[in-house]
Amino acid sequence: MTKTRIERDSMGELQVPEDALYGAQTQRAVDNFPISGKPMPVQFIRALILAKTAAARANIELKQIGEAQGKAIVDAAQGLLEGDFMQHFPVDIFQTGSGTSSNMNANEVIATLASRLLGEAVNPNDHVNCGQSSNDIIPTTIHVSAALALYEQLLPALTHLVQVIERKAGQVHHHVKTGRTHLMDAMPVRMSQVLNGWAQQLKANISHLQDLLPSLQSLAQGGTAVGTGVNAHPEFAARFSQQLSTLTRVQFQPGKDLFALIGSQDTAVAVSGQLKATAVSLMKIANDLRWMNSGPLAGLGEIELEALQAGSSIMPGKVNPVIPEATAMVAAQVIGNDSVITIAGQSGNFELNVMLPIIAQNLLSSIELLANSSRLLADKAIASFKVNEGRIKEALSRNPILVTALNPIIGYQKAAEIAKKAYQQGRPVIDVALEHTDLSRGQLEELLNPEKLTAGGV
Amino acid sequence: MTKTRIERDSMGELQVPEDALYGAQTQRAVDNFPISGKPMPVQFIRALILAKTAAARANIELKQIGEAQGKAIVDAAQGLLEGDFMQHFPVDIFQTGSGTSSNMNANEVIATLASRLLGEAVNPNDHVNCGQSSNDIIPTTIHVSAALALYEQLLPALTHLVQVIERKAGQVHHHVKTGRTHLMDAMPVRMSQVLNGWAQQLKANISHLQDLLPSLQSLAQGGTAVGTGVNAHPEFAARFSQQLSTLTRVQFQPGKDLFALIGSQDTAVAVSGQLKATAVSLMKIANDLRWMNSGPLAGLGEIELEALQAGSSIMPGKVNPVIPEATAMVAAQVIGNDSVITIAGQSGNFELNVMLPIIAQNLLSSIELLANSSRLLADKAIASFKVNEGRIKEALSRNPILVTALNPIIGYQKAAEIAKKAYQQGRPVIDVALEHTDLSRGQLEELLNPEKLTAGGV
Amino acid sequence: MTKTRIERDSMGELQVPEDALYGAQTQRAVDNFPISGKPMPVQFIRALILAKTAAARANIELKQIGEAQGKAIVDAAQGLLEGDFMQHFPVDIFQTGSGTSSNMNANEVIATLASRLLGEAVNPNDHVNCGQSSNDIIPTTIHVSAALALYEQLLPALTHLVQVIERKAGQVHHHVKTGRTHLMDAMPVRMSQVLNGWAQQLKANISHLQDLLPSLQSLAQGGTAVGTGVNAHPEFAARFSQQLSTLTRVQFQPGKDLFALIGSQDTAVAVSGQLKATAVSLMKIANDLRWMNSGPLAGLGEIELEALQAGSSIMPGKVNPVIPEATAMVAAQVIGNDSVITIAGQSGNFELNVMLPIIAQNLLSSIELLANSSRLLADKAIASFKVNEGRIKEALSRNPILVTALNPIIGYQKAAEIAKKAYQQGRPVIDVALEHTDLSRGQLEELLNPEKLTAGGV
Amino acid sequence: MTKTRIERDSMGELQVPEDALYGAQTQRAVDNFPISGKPMPVQFIRALILAKTAAARANIELKQIGEAQGKAIVDAAQGLLEGDFMQHFPVDIFQTGSGTSSNMNANEVIATLASRLLGEAVNPNDHVNCGQSSNDIIPTTIHVSAALALYEQLLPALTHLVQVIERKAGQVHHHVKTGRTHLMDAMPVRMSQVLNGWAQQLKANISHLQDLLPSLQSLAQGGTAVGTGVNAHPEFAARFSQQLSTLTRVQFQPGKDLFALIGSQDTAVAVSGQLKATAVSLMKIANDLRWMNSGPLAGLGEIELEALQAGSSIMPGKVNPVIPEATAMVAAQVIGNDSVITIAGQSGNFELNVMLPIIAQNLLSSIELLANSSRLLADKAIASFKVNEGRIKEALSRNPILVTALNPIIGYQKAAEIAKKAYQQGRPVIDVALEHTDLSRGQLEELLNPEKLTAGGV
Repeated sequence: MTKTRIERDSMGELQVPEDALYGAQTQRAVDNFPISGKPMPVQFIRALILAKTAAARANIELKQIGEAQGKAIVDAAQGLLEGDFMQHFPVDIFQTGSGTSSNMNANEVIATLASRLLGEAVNPNDHVNCGQSSNDIIPTTIHVSAALALYEQLLPALTHLVQVIERKAGQVHHHVKTGRTHLMDAMPVRMSQVLNGWAQQLKANISHLQDLLPSLQSLAQGGTAVGTGVNAHPEFAARFSQQLSTLTRVQFQPGKDLFALIGSQDTAVAVSGQLKATAVSLMKIANDLRWMNSGPLAGLGEIELEALQAGSSIMPGKVNPVIPEATAMVAAQVIGNDSVITIAGQSGNFELNVMLPIIAQNLLSSIELLANSSRLLADKAIASFKVNEGRIKEALSRNPILVTALNPIIGYQKAAEIAKKAYQQGRPVIDVALEHTDLSRGQLEELLNPEKLTAGGV
Repeated sequence: MTKTRIERDSMGELQVPEDALYGAQTQRAVDNFPISGKPMPVQFIRALILAKTAAARANIELKQIGEAQGKAIVDAAQGLLEGDFMQHFPVDIFQTGSGTSSNMNANEVIATLASRLLGEAVNPNDHVNCGQSSNDIIPTTIHVSAALALYEQLLPALTHLVQVIERKAGQVHHHVKTGRTHLMDAMPVRMSQVLNGWAQQLKANISHLQDLLPSLQSLAQGGTAVGTGVNAHPEFAARFSQQLSTLTRVQFQPGKDLFALIGSQDTAVAVSGQLKATAVSLMKIANDLRWMNSGPLAGLGEIELEALQAGSSIMPGKVNPVIPEATAMVAAQVIGNDSVITIAGQSGNFELNVMLPIIAQNLLSSIELLANSSRLLADKAIASFKVNEGRIKEALSRNPILVTALNPIIGYQKAAEIAKKAYQQGRPVIDVALEHTDLSRGQLEELLNPEKLTAGGV
Repeated sequence: MTKTRIERDSMGELQVPEDALYGAQTQRAVDNFPISGKPMPVQFIRALILAKTAAARANIELKQIGEAQGKAIVDAAQGLLEGDFMQHFPVDIFQTGSGTSSNMNANEVIATLASRLLGEAVNPNDHVNCGQSSNDIIPTTIHVSAALALYEQLLPALTHLVQVIERKAGQVHHHVKTGRTHLMDAMPVRMSQVLNGWAQQLKANISHLQDLLPSLQSLAQGGTAVGTGVNAHPEFAARFSQQLSTLTRVQFQPGKDLFALIGSQDTAVAVSGQLKATAVSLMKIANDLRWMNSGPLAGLGEIELEALQAGSSIMPGKVNPVIPEATAMVAAQVIGNDSVITIAGQSGNFELNVMLPIIAQNLLSSIELLANSSRLLADKAIASFKVNEGRIKEALSRNPILVTALNPIIGYQKAAEIAKKAYQQGRPVIDVALEHTDLSRGQLEELLNPEKLTAGGV
Repeated sequence: MTKTRIERDSMGELQVPEDALYGAQTQRAVDNFPISGKPMPVQFIRALILAKTAAARANIELKQIGEAQGKAIVDAAQGLLEGDFMQHFPVDIFQTGSGTSSNMNANEVIATLASRLLGEAVNPNDHVNCGQSSNDIIPTTIHVSAALALYEQLLPALTHLVQVIERKAGQVHHHVKTGRTHLMDAMPVRMSQVLNGWAQQLKANISHLQDLLPSLQSLAQGGTAVGTGVNAHPEFAARFSQQLSTLTRVQFQPGKDLFALIGSQDTAVAVSGQLKATAVSLMKIANDLRWMNSGPLAGLGEIELEALQAGSSIMPGKVNPVIPEATAMVAAQVIGNDSVITIAGQSGNFELNVMLPIIAQNLLSSIELLANSSRLLADKAIASFKVNEGRIKEALSRNPILVTALNPIIGYQKAAEIAKKAYQQGRPVIDVALEHTDLSRGQLEELLNPEKLTAGGV
C-alpha cells in the first residue's frame, strides 16, 4: 500500500501518494481517467516543461512574478528535464479535452520543486501558470513538440534516407531491368532510375513538410483563456516566443490570430496530412523493395535484402523482408493516426478545440515512427541489398515489349503484331522483327538495346 | 430560356419551370444548393416513391386521408416509377442535412400527378406527407433503399462470384504451385486451395452482411418529427411496414426505438463498415490475381487473364489486368465512402442526424460498385483465366523450402542448414538432403512430394 | 552495462542479456526493430501463452511431444502467466509483419523455463512450437485475444452502460424538454426517451458485435505455414481448440477454411468496423451530454454533470464535461485504429497477411479504450447528472413549434402562419392560435400539452 | 436499337455506334467497365483535350508529326472544347487503373475529327498520341486539371469567403458575447474576433494550398511509358509545358524526376491532404454557425441565419441552418475523398500507379465541392446573418466566469470561491466580489467590464 498525504484544491481534499511531486489536481485526473494506462508522450512533456521555463523567464522580464520565484521555476524545470521526468507525469492521454490536467500536472510538479529550491511557496496557478491558460499553453506545446520532433528526428532521418538511396543509386546504375506498369513487363529502366525516383518522392515530402514549419512555429501563447489574452501582459506572447526560441534554437513567434490557434487545430491537421503523404511514399518504396526481393526462386528475385533474422518458425532457411514490412506497418499506422487527427480537428466548437491530448499523441507518434523506420529502411535494407544480375538480365532479354522502340518506324499496329507473335512463339522479338520489317539485324540490335532505351528520346 | 410559372409556399412566391411537376419547395432547394450538380441516387428516389405509396395505403386503411385521394397518390406514385422519374428529382445531394428537400420534392411531384388523376387538389404536406415527417421518412428510405440494393444487387453478385470461384477451383485443383508468405517462396499449395480461400472470404462477408439485414429492415417510420410519433396514427408504423413489405417482397418492421433510428444512423454506419470489410476482401483477391498474372515473362506468370483490350497506347501487344484493377479501385472508393459515412454518422445531435443525404449517396454507391465489380471479376477475370502450368511447375521444382517437411524427422536447425546450402548452390533440395541425412532417395521423394505436402498433416 | 551471454541461432552468434529468458531470435528482433519502443499488448501476449499451453496439451494427447516435455511447457506457461510476464516480451510492435518474432519470443521464453523445470533441453522450435507456425498461431492469437477482450471487457462494460442509462431513464422520465432537430427547437420529448434512444443504440452495437463472435472464435490454428497444415497432426486443429476452450471457457473451433484465415485478416477488419460503429454511437451520446450540460448560463443548461475536477487553470470555478470529452477522444482514436486495420487488412498477398502485429495492437487498443470509457461514462457522467428542471420548463413553454400538433386540424400552411407570428411577436403560441382558429382555449391546452405530445399518435 | 459500324483494333473487330466519334478501343472500354455508370469528370476531360492540343503543337515544332496533321489535331481539339464534348467520353471512372481507356478515347475522338478536317487519316496512336503514353499524359492531366480547378474555382472561392467574413467582422465588431471553451461559459469575446479567427483559418489553408501549387504544376509529360521518355523527342517535355502554359495561362514545367511522377501520385495525395485540412476548417466554421443559430428559443440563439426554405415537412414555421449543413456534408465528403486518394496513392508498384482514374475523380470532386459550398457559405449564410443582441447581452451579464479578471489581484483560489457562490446563488458576480474582496464597486465595474476584457492584457 502506498503511503499518502492529504492535498486540497478548489474542489476539496483528497489523498495523494506521499512522495508525489504533483498535487491535488493531478491526482484527481489520475483518478478520473483510468482509460488507456498510457501517459502523454515524452516529447510533449518535455516541450511543456520548456514552455513553462520560457514563460517564467518572460514573466520575470515583465515583472509579473518575482525574480526569485521565477528563477526557482526555471531551475526546477531545468532539473526536471535532466532527470527521468516521466515518472511525475502520470495523467492518461484520454483526459479532459483541453489537456488542462497535463498543464496542471506540470504546474504542480514544477511548483513543488521550485518551492523546495526557494524555501517558500511557489503557487502552481498564480506563479507557474502566470499569464497562461491551458487553452494557450497546450496548443503551444503541440506546435513546439511537433516542430522539435520534425527538426530533431524526422527531417534528418528522411534526409539520411535520401542520401542512402542516392548513394545506392550510384552503385547500381549499370543494372538495367525490366520496367513494370500494371505489374506487366514494360520498357526497361535502370535500377538507378528506380532509386532516384524514390529519392525524389522523399525530397518532395521533405519540401512540403518544410513549407508547413512556419505555421507550426507560430504559437497560440498569449491568447490565454479564449484568445483575447485576458490576464496576460500585452508583451507576454512576444517575450515568451523569444525565450523559447533561445531555449530551443528554433525560431518561434506569436501566431497572427490567436483565436484560430486555440479554437482550431488546423496546423496539426495540415502537418498530419503531410506526414500521411510521406507514409504513402514510404509504403510505395517498401512495397517495391518487397517485390524486388520476392522469391528467391518463384518470385521476381531482382534483389536480395540483407538477412536480419530467421524468417519462419516452421520453414527453415526462409528469410523475409522484415524492414520493409515494418516500414509498411509504420505507414499504415501513420495513416490511421491521421484519421484520428482529422476527427479531432473537427472537434472544436467556438473558442477551444477539445481533443488536444490525442492530437498531440498521434502527431508525435507519427513523426517518431516515420523517423525511426526511415533510418532502418536506409541502413538495414537499402544500403545493403544485393542485385541478382543474372535474374535481371535473363528477364530482360526475353521481353517482347522492347518492340515499342520500333513504333516511330513501323507504327503501333505493326509493332503490336510482332510483339504478340514473339510472345506466343516464345521467340526473341528481334528475330520476329527481322521477318516482319525491312530493318537489318544491326539496325534492330541498335534500336532494341535495353541500355539505350533507358536513356529516353527518339 | 425556360418558361416559368409562379408558385408559392410558406416563405412566399417564386418562379418554377412551367412544366415542372414539382413546386415551390423543390425549386427553392434547386436554387439554394448549386453544389455538386448531382441528384440523389436513383435507388434512393425509387425507395422514397415506394415509401410514399406504402404511406398512402396505410393512411387509407387508417382513414387518415380519403380513399380517392389515397388511391390517386398510389396511382401517381406507380406511374412515376414506370417512367423516367429522375428528371423530376433535381435536388442536389448536398442539401439540407435532413433530406427534407428531397422529401418535399417527392411530396410535390406526387401531389401534382395525383391532383391531375383525381381532378382536385391533393396537398403535398397534408395528404402525400400525411403521418410522416422528413425526419422519419428519409431514414426509412435509407434503410429501404439499402436493403433492396443488398437483396437485388450485392448479395446475388457476391453469391455469383463465390460460385464462379468455386467452379474454377474445381477446374484448377490439379495445379500445385509455390505458396508465398511475406512474398517469399513457402510450402506448396493447390491452386484450388487459393481459390477456395477467396470463396470463403466472400462467404464470410455475405454472412456478416446478412446478419445486419434485420437492423436494416427495421424502420424509423412512425416516429415523425422527433421520434415520439406526434401527428401519426398509433398504428401507422405497423401498417406502413406491412404495406411496404407487400410492395417490395422484403419484410420490413417498425424499429424497436424510433429515437435511436432518427437521432443516429448507426445501422448505416454498421452496414457501411461491413461493405468496407467486403471491399478489403476484394482488394486482396484482386491483388492476388494481378500478381499471379504479372509478367508475362519478368513477373510471376502463374496465370493469364483474359485479354479484354489493348493495354497501352504506346507499348504494342501489352495486355493489362484491367478488371482486377477496376475492382481494386472500387474497393478503394468503398473504403472512402465508409469514411464519409463514419463522419456523417457522428453528425447527429439530439433528435436528428443531419447528414442523411450523403449517407444515402455513399451507402448506395458502395453497394452498387461492389455488386457490379463482383460480377465483372467473376465473369471477365476468374472464369476465364488460364494457368501457365510450365511456369508453376518449374518454380516449384526448385523450391528449397520443401525441406520444411523434414522438420519432424531431422529438426528445424538441421533442416535450415540443408535449405541454405541448396539455395546457395542452386541444387535440388533432395540432393542436398541425401548427403546430410540418413534418409533414402525414396523416402525423400515421398516426403518432399509437393502434391502430398498440400494435403497437410504429418 | 548489462552483462551478456552468447547465444546462437541459424544465423550465427549474438549477445543476449545474461539473465534474459529469451534467446537469440528474440534478441535479433530487439536489435532489428528500435521503432516505437512499445511492446505488443499484454492481452495479446497473454493469449499467446494460453495458445502455447493449449498446443502443448494437444501435442501430448497426439503424442507429438513427450509427456514430460509437454507438462514442462504447460507448467512453464502457467508460471509465466502468474507473474509479471511482460518484462520477457520486449519485441517492438513494428517488427516482422507475421509476428514471427513475438512467436519465437514466446517459444524461447517458455522453452527456457520448461528446460529449467524439466532439467533437460526443451527446444523452442521443435517442442514449444510443435505443430505450429507463426502463420497460424499469430492469427489465432489475434482472434483469441480479441474474443477474450470482448467477453471479459467490452461486452460487460457496454451492458453496464446500457443498464445505467436505462436506470437513469426511469429516474428522469417525468422531465419533458424541447426536442431539437437541425439544432433547432422541435417538438417536445421526454428525457427518458432521449436516454432510451441511447440505450437502444448501444444494444444494437452489442448485438452486432455478438453476431461477429462466431467468426472470431474460428481459428487459423492447424494451417501451419501456408494453410495446408503441413507438419501438424491432422487432429491438431480440433484438439487445440478443445484445449483452448477448456482453458479460457470460451468456445473456440477450427476455422472452415484455414487459407482464408491466414491469407486475410477479414474477421479483424469486420470486428474493427463494428467497434468503429460503436465508437460513432458513443460520440453521439457524449456530444448530446456535452451540449445538454453546456452553459451553465449561456448554453443549453438542461443538465449538470457531476463536477470531477477544476476545469480551467485560469478561469476559476469552471467545470467541464471531462468524461464525455474523454469518451469522444476514445471514439476518435477507435475510428483511427479502424483506419489502420483497414489498411493492414489489405496487406495480405497470397498465403499470408503481413501486418499482423499492428492489427493486434489496434484491435485490442480499441476494445480496451471503449470498455474503460464506457464504464466511466456510465458511472461518472450518466449515473450522476442532475436535471435543471427550471431551464427545461422555461424553454419548453415558449416553443412555437408545438403548433405542429394542430396540423391535422388546421393544415400545415395555417399552422406555419401561427408559428411565425408567435415567434415574431414573442407571444405564447396558444394565444396566437386562439385568435386564428376556431379552437377554444380548453381544446388548445389539451392539444398543445407538451407531456401529451411526447406520447405520439394523433 | 442503335445502328452500328464495324471497327477494329489490335484485338480484332467490334461494333461501335454508327455516329460515335470514338473507335474500337473506347468501345471496348465501354463494354468492359459497366460499373458506376459515371464518366470521368468534365474538368479532367477538358484538361486532357488541352494536353492533346499542347502535345500536337510541340510535335509540330519538333517535326514529329506533319504540320497539316498537327494543325488538324489542334483544330479538332479546339472544336471539341467549344461544344458539348462530354457526350463523346463515355468511359466509366472505374476502368483500367492507368486511365489508358480515357487517353485512347481522347486519341480516337480527336483523330476522327482531325481526319474529317484534314481529309486524310490521322492516326489515334501514331499522331494524336505521338510522343506520349497514357502513363505520362494521364498523370499530367491529373496535375493540370487540379491546378486549373484550384486557380479557377477553389482559391477564388476561398478568397471570397475570407473577404465576406472579414467584411462581416467589421459589421459585428461591437457585439461582445460569451466565449465558450468545452462548450462552457468562458471569458467574453467580440463577435469580430470569432469571425476573424475563421478568416485566419481559411487564409492559412489558402497559403498551404498555394505552397503545393509548384508541385502540381510540375508534369510527368515526357516520361512516356515508364519514365525514361522512350519514343519522345528529348525536347518534348519542355515544349509541351511551354505550349500548355500558353494555352492555360498557368505556368507548367517538366517535373524534376519523371519516374516519381509516374510511379507515384504523391502530389495528389499531398494536395488532397490539404483539401481535407480545408474541409476540417469549414466543418468548424459551419458548426459554430449552426450552434450560434440554434434555438431560436431553446438554443443559443446568438444569431439568426437567413431563412432560405421551409425547414420541416411537418413542423410549420421551422427554419433550419441548411447552408452550414450542406457545407458540413461537403466537408465530410472531402474527408472521404481523401481516404480514397490515400488508398489509391499506395497502389503504385514499380513504374506506374494504377488508381489514376479515381484519384482524378476524387481530387476534382473535392475541389469543386469546396469551391461551391464556400461561395454559398459566404453569400447565403455569413453575409446575411443577423445578431440577436438581446440574447447575447443577457447571457453575458450573468456570466460568473468574468471573475477570471480578478485572478491577478486576489489569486485563483479566492476567485474560484466567488465564482461558485455567484453561480449557486444566481447572483451577479460583482455583488459577490464586493462582499469577499477589498475592491470597490467602481474598481470591480472597471475590472469586470466585458468589452474591456476582450481587449486582452492585464
